[in-house]
Amino acid sequence: MVDIATRVWNHKWKIDPIVRSLIDTDFYKLLMCQSVFRSHPQTQVTFSLINRTTSVPLAKLIDEGELREQLDHVRSLSLARGESTWMRGNTFYGKRQMFTPEFMDWFEALRLPPYHLERKGDQYELTFEGAWPEVMLWEIPALAILMELRGRAVLDDMGRFELQVLYARAMTKLWEKVKTLRALDGLRIADFGTRRRHSFLWQDWCVQAMQEGLGDAFTGTSNCLIAKSRDMEAIGTNAHEMPMVYAALADDDATLAHAPYDVLADWQQEHDGNLRIILPDTYGTEGFLERAPDWLAGWTGIRIDSGDPAKGAEIAIDWWRRRGEDPSKKLIIFSDGLDVDKIVQLHRQFSGRVRVSFGWGTLLTNDFRGLTEGDALAPFSLVCKAVAAEGRPTVKLSDNPEKAMGPPEQIERYKNVFGVGEQERLEVVV
Amino acid sequence: MVDIATRVWNHKWKIDPIVRSLIDTDFYKLLMCQSVFRSHPQTQVTFSLINRTTSVPLAKLIDEGELREQLDHVRSLSLARGESTWMRGNTFYGKRQMFTPEFMDWFEALRLPPYHLERKGDQYELTFEGAWPEVMLWEIPALAILMELRGRAVLDDMGRFELQVLYARAMTKLWEKVKTLRALDGLRIADFGTRRRHSFLWQDWCVQAMQEGLGDAFTGTSNCLIAKSRDMEAIGTNAHEMPMVYAALADDDATLAHAPYDVLADWQQEHDGNLRIILPDTYGTEGFLERAPDWLAGWTGIRIDSGDPAKGAEIAIDWWRRRGEDPSKKLIIFSDGLDVDKIVQLHRQFSGRVRVSFGWGTLLTNDFRGLTEGDALAPFSLVCKAVAAEGRPTVKLSDNPEKAMGPPEQIERYKNVFGVGEQERLEVVV
Repeated sequence: MVDIATRVWNHKWKIDPIVRSLIDTDFYKLLMCQSVFRSHPQTQVTFSLINRTTSVPLAKLIDEGELREQLDHVRSLSLARGESTWMRGNTFYGKRQMFTPEFMDWFEALRLPPYHLERKGDQYELTFEGAWPEVMLWEIPALAILMELRGRAVLDDMGRFELQVLYARAMTKLWEKVKTLRALDGLRIADFGTRRRHSFLWQDWCVQAMQEGLGDAFTGTSNCLIAKSRDMEAIGTNAHEMPMVYAALADDDATLAHAPYDVLADWQQEHDGNLRIILPDTYGTEGFLERAPDWLAGWTGIRIDSGDPAKGAEIAIDWWRRRGEDPSKKLIIFSDGLDVDKIVQLHRQFSGRVRVSFGWGTLLTNDFRGLTEGDALAPFSLVCKAVAAEGRPTVKLSDNPEKAMGPPEQIERYKNVFGVGEQERLEVVV
Repeated sequence: MVDIATRVWNHKWKIDPIVRSLIDTDFYKLLMCQSVFRSHPQTQVTFSLINRTTSVPLAKLIDEGELREQLDHVRSLSLARGESTWMRGNTFYGKRQMFTPEFMDWFEALRLPPYHLERKGDQYELTFEGAWPEVMLWEIPALAILMELRGRAVLDDMGRFELQVLYARAMTKLWEKVKTLRALDGLRIADFGTRRRHSFLWQDWCVQAMQEGLGDAFTGTSNCLIAKSRDMEAIGTNAHEMPMVYAALADDDATLAHAPYDVLADWQQEHDGNLRIILPDTYGTEGFLERAPDWLAGWTGIRIDSGDPAKGAEIAIDWWRRRGEDPSKKLIIFSDGLDVDKIVQLHRQFSGRVRVSFGWGTLLTNDFRGLTEGDALAPFSLVCKAVAAEGRPTVKLSDNPEKAMGPPEQIERYKNVFGVGEQERLEVVV
């Protein structure tokens, strides 16, 4: 039976939007947004798209008109009543009223600020400028749009059954991963794959498959819209943009050296328990922990997001021991470029010694490697970062020089201030 | 948007019927039915289900109540107006009015006759008795019902995403086959997989995937309902039941020896061109061709349905040459237990020498081998055959003693009459 109304409705849609809601974003963005809304509501920042995989010529693959349509659609979105209710009424990390009435009033009235788009050779220059709490919300939708439009460009040429087989293969591939993970005793893993997902519907499928296949071992998703519609936990804490902007705002080297700890001091005022997770690698994990104030050792855990993850975890364990903490009570969240083999290996190496958890991103929600000719759907390393705050460039060093960002002379200055020496260079897959 | 009417309609359905139409059957059944309707309308026959794979305990897997429901549903079916229009108005094998008004009037009024079902140990005894043109129409629906109920019994325990991945794997598996076949120059292949299909919807998917993947190399489907709804050619000629019943009706050995040729003499009066296909193996291909009247060598082609197919084809080619025919003008249809490797091999060996065509059955529409634990969905060898005519047992020898059927003393008698000696024993997969 044809549902005529749905058909007509579909025809009315000028586009099938890639981002369909303001909460089709990572939970940690909303947490950080509230924090920034309170502490830096007027700070002017610039976010910019950076394609680290320059071999993928985004401007040749993606039509500028289509890209603008999708970005414009995001600007037309506002928080729906049910979404607001969910944010106001839901329990996050065991806490009621995680989002304050003041923040919710502001968020309900919000529309995302304008974007600046320009083709530069085979790449797009896409930037967002304005007040930090507004501009920061562009990161996830902008990435998701570019990832999906690139995918659609590849899918456009495929037949109906060829397409179905493509998804069949991708489903099979994910299910094999789920079956491997099912064998891990005490596994805890969440979906962190919104930003570089293949598409919203595919992420939604992956998340549900993980839930059926892994049961309680699957702890939730970072995507708020999926968490809401599938009645799951929304997962996430904080990201590099906080120390990067705090650092850029520092007036001298002494303030700069202290900036990453200021971020966490502010965070500590707002959050406790499993939300007290240190992200130590913005300017080098080792130096960060070495100089960290003692109160930080009391935090619940640490997130390892660059460098050799096993090495990072050993550094954290050693640091906790030296600060008189029991590592077996601590949580380590691995979230950098994970796939099943690495998850299995890290789980074997660290479970029991610490509490281990995984935030699985792109290779959960966008692993189409090997499924098309010329591997045209292979994921690539696209980021959207705060590149400036109040006119000053931001810098990120991380534990892998391949992930470093910022003007070269500022990178040198930061390396000196944070005492970062030679770093191991690791290939960035996603 | 929920289509409430469809939901309500679905709830009203007591069952999702496995066989949903009287033309959800093989085209050759309808051709033969018309032939039998004209020549033997009152001949009493018995058809019986035979599970050649006794290791599959059908009565343990399939609930008797469910089986009865599905069989009863088939008895409730009658030819729909659009189906009748399609049979009356369509062109089959280039011919208009393939089905006569007399036959169509009878078919429109037809309901399938009663069945007899009894559990015997771990198997079901399922038999159909009555007038040949009515009873013969039970064969395909009965097989499809048992195959699908066995499949449903396995699928019942699976989760929603596990199920989706199962079908994803099956789709991928078929698509790999399609890609292999695409490389064969001049391939001609049709779907012959109705009787032992996984399900109607799956057969429908496979047929469409073949069409998209192979284009003109895919020549059509034996399933009339799918041919009708997908606007494809309906494919098929005749089967063993014709010589088997004709033979059983023979009063003496001389008449018996001539029975297989009587079938084709009757057929020749009704059909020409690509419908003049010899099925020579019922009582041994070599003897059949050796003693065949000369007019048979003028027929369009031959269907190889048992024994070593390459050997059978060489026998046919040699026979045509000896009868002064040009084999390169002749058609050989391979239809026994085909899968891609065998198709590739036979195509390479015979294309150019003769016109080659393939009727691909169970391993097109029901290849779930290796996709479930314990291979619980692997196809098995289930047949539904005419076992008696006017109270006399039927016999089939074929070119493989594993496929022989009938009472031992009758098999001996037939072997003597048809001069069949030692035969190569080949494993029957499906």
